[in-house]
Amino acid sequence: MYTITVIPGDGIGPEVMEATLDILKASDLEFDFHEARAGYACYQETGNTLPHETLEIARNADATLFGAITSVPEQKTPSSILTLRKELGLYANLRPIKSYPGVKSLYGDVDILIIRENSEGLYSGIEEVTSEGATALRVITRKASQRISRVAFEEAKNRGKTRVTAVHKANVLRKSDGVFRNSFWKVAEEYKEKDGYRDIATDELYVDAAAMFLVTDPHRFQVMVTTNLFGDILSDEGAGLVGGLGMAPSANIGDDNGLFEPVHGSAPDIASKGVANPAAMILSACLMLQFLGEHQEAFKLEQALIKVLEEGIVLTPDLGGTSTTMEMAQAVKKYFKKS
Amino acid sequence: MYTITVIPGDGIGPEVMEATLDILKASDLEFDFHEARAGYACYQETGNTLPHETLEIARNADATLFGAITSVPEQKTPSSILTLRKELGLYANLRPIKSYPGVKSLYGDVDILIIRENSEGLYSGIEEVTSEGATALRVITRKASQRISRVAFEEAKNRGKTRVTAVHKANVLRKSDGVFRNSFWKVAEEYKEKDGYRDIATDELYVDAAAMFLVTDPHRFQVMVTTNLFGDILSDEGAGLVGGLGMAPSANIGDDNGLFEPVHGSAPDIASKGVANPAAMILSACLMLQFLGEHQEAFKLEQALIKVLEEGIVLTPDLGGTSTTMEMAQAVKKYFKKS
Ligand SMILES: CC(C)[C@H](C(=O)O)[C@@H](O)C(=O)O
Ligand SMILES: CC(C)[C@H](C(=O)O)[C@@H](O)C(=O)O
Repeated sequence: MYTITVIPGDGIGPEVMEATLDILKASDLEFDFHEARAGYACYQETGNTLPHETLEIARNADATLFGAITSVPEQKTPSSILTLRKELGLYANLRPIKSYPGVKSLYGDVDILIIRENSEGLYSGIEEVTSEGATALRVITRKASQRISRVAFEEAKNRGKTRVTAVHKANVLRKSDGVFRNSFWKVAEEYKEKDGYRDIATDELYVDAAAMFLVTDPHRFQVMVTTNLFGDILSDEGAGLVGGLGMAPSANIGDDNGLFEPVHGSAPDIASKGVANPAAMILSACLMLQFLGEHQEAFKLEQALIKVLEEGIVLTPDLGGTSTTMEMAQAVKKYFKKS
Repeated sequence: MYTITVIPGDGIGPEVMEATLDILKASDLEFDFHEARAGYACYQETGNTLPHETLEIARNADATLFGAITSVPEQKTPSSILTLRKELGLYANLRPIKSYPGVKSLYGDVDILIIRENSEGLYSGIEEVTSEGATALRVITRKASQRISRVAFEEAKNRGKTRVTAVHKANVLRKSDGVFRNSFWKVAEEYKEKDGYRDIATDELYVDAAAMFLVTDPHRFQVMVTTNLFGDILSDEGAGLVGGLGMAPSANIGDDNGLFEPVHGSAPDIASKGVANPAAMILSACLMLQFLGEHQEAFKLEQALIKVLEEGIVLTPDLGGTSTTMEMAQAVKKYFKKS
């Protein structure tokens, strides 16, 4: 029995969440779903985008599913998702970039895992107004850099990947990305000695070169590990390569908690029409199942989605179909139950 | 008569420079070329990657053509190109992203100008080693942000573009990119009132969204203006879209100086074989001619290159041909002289 916090949020968040929960309920596993609130609607009712209670529910759960939230323009505090990452200690952000059948994409056969450091860098929150403008502090520590590098090697092994590429800008950010770079190579040395990791090749690239190769030669990448904002940029670029945000899931992972969210936002333009593509939320649920150690359920769920994509019949409009979010989810559920 | 500093540099730098100078010498304009040194070979001979003399020659010229340099691994000082940008006050980095005929590319008809702030941001050089790692200071000033925004509107008008998109991450870097964002909109307001600029539409995007749209929908962009490191990343990504660095020129521009360089590096792997693609250096010379106000010569030079690409006969190996750098340059020169 897993206790799962569910934060539907705003816009299409509740729609893709409902669809995904309906599929998960068909699983052999038992889930205890606790709904909690965050985002714009929550702010309008409670004056708070992220009530204390939501944090408490998330802290005590085995994992959290997060839909999407609309940010509050006048709000001066960080986005709720940033607060959740920080408060729950979710230091690793996993962003798979994967081609799926029937999805319009610039390349086929892409299967990259971008691992984004999720706790520091330019997300330190340390900014200062000066007489001339403002500054932001990019914080890179050995601890966080080594920790995220370890995640990269662990994930590489678990997913049968044979290369880890560190991405940084140490030619300009000599000291700060010097720390990231050295931490990566130190961890790489450790793993070279470990059974099961010896065959994992390692290399490094400057972030500008990585941004270029992602477009010209994505197959050269398997696992990429990088600092917070570089990961933010490269993972959206990568999502663009394989069909855009409609297919991009993410996992925010810490030592004893995980939060899983589609990379797409609340998409106000298509909200409440019931036509949002549920795939990114479903794939986020797959990442949650992997995190819970339920690898077989995760595999079954992804395969069910792949079958629906391959069939190409019950698809939402962004995928070229005419079905609703719920119809597509039902199609996935049917295969998931059969498997 | 224009006085031009020529810094061939290392690797393929001298090869593409020789080819480009040979074409320029066929122009109706008169150039006085002064060669100056920088880079790795220079360091090995003089102990200095950027001799004081080189800076002086560049400072006194009308413009500088820069090939490419190999960085010195053990060197602790910033790359020579960064010093040149700083010492010569080259605060704007223009990076055209343009599809050319016969060049393998993910999209045709792309014609974007990325305008990168070139003097501050994460290139401030302010880094500090701490007990836990290191920090870097991202510096954003109103002055530099307004200045680069003005460049964006001026370039948009000069190139007949009808949209300027500001790219930032003000949802996370609230204060520092808040300054960039506000500065952009202040300048946009000014230009809304100016004759000749009223038809230029404006919008803004977060850098992660921009990185995605560049891949999924590059035609939505005309002029993008952004901070230093975001410009570095997005322009390499953009170069990847239209055929890679072999075709990507750049202009580093200040109030009374300009330095023009291909985005590709010194490419040690193909150096001294005489097969480097001279197009990025030739296109950098086009940007120099534009900077000097020689718009017709610039146009003629670009058209000559386009003819050679269209013919598809005298091309370097990266473009699918079997010709040398010099042969391709001679073909361009032939059309340039005729025109
Ligand atoms: C909404 C925003 C704060 C967030 C980020 O920058 O991390 C988003 O872009 C993401 O990638 O999850
Ligand atoms: C070589 C490096 C310092 C430089 C930069 O980061 O600006 C390069 O990547 C560029 O884009 O001109």
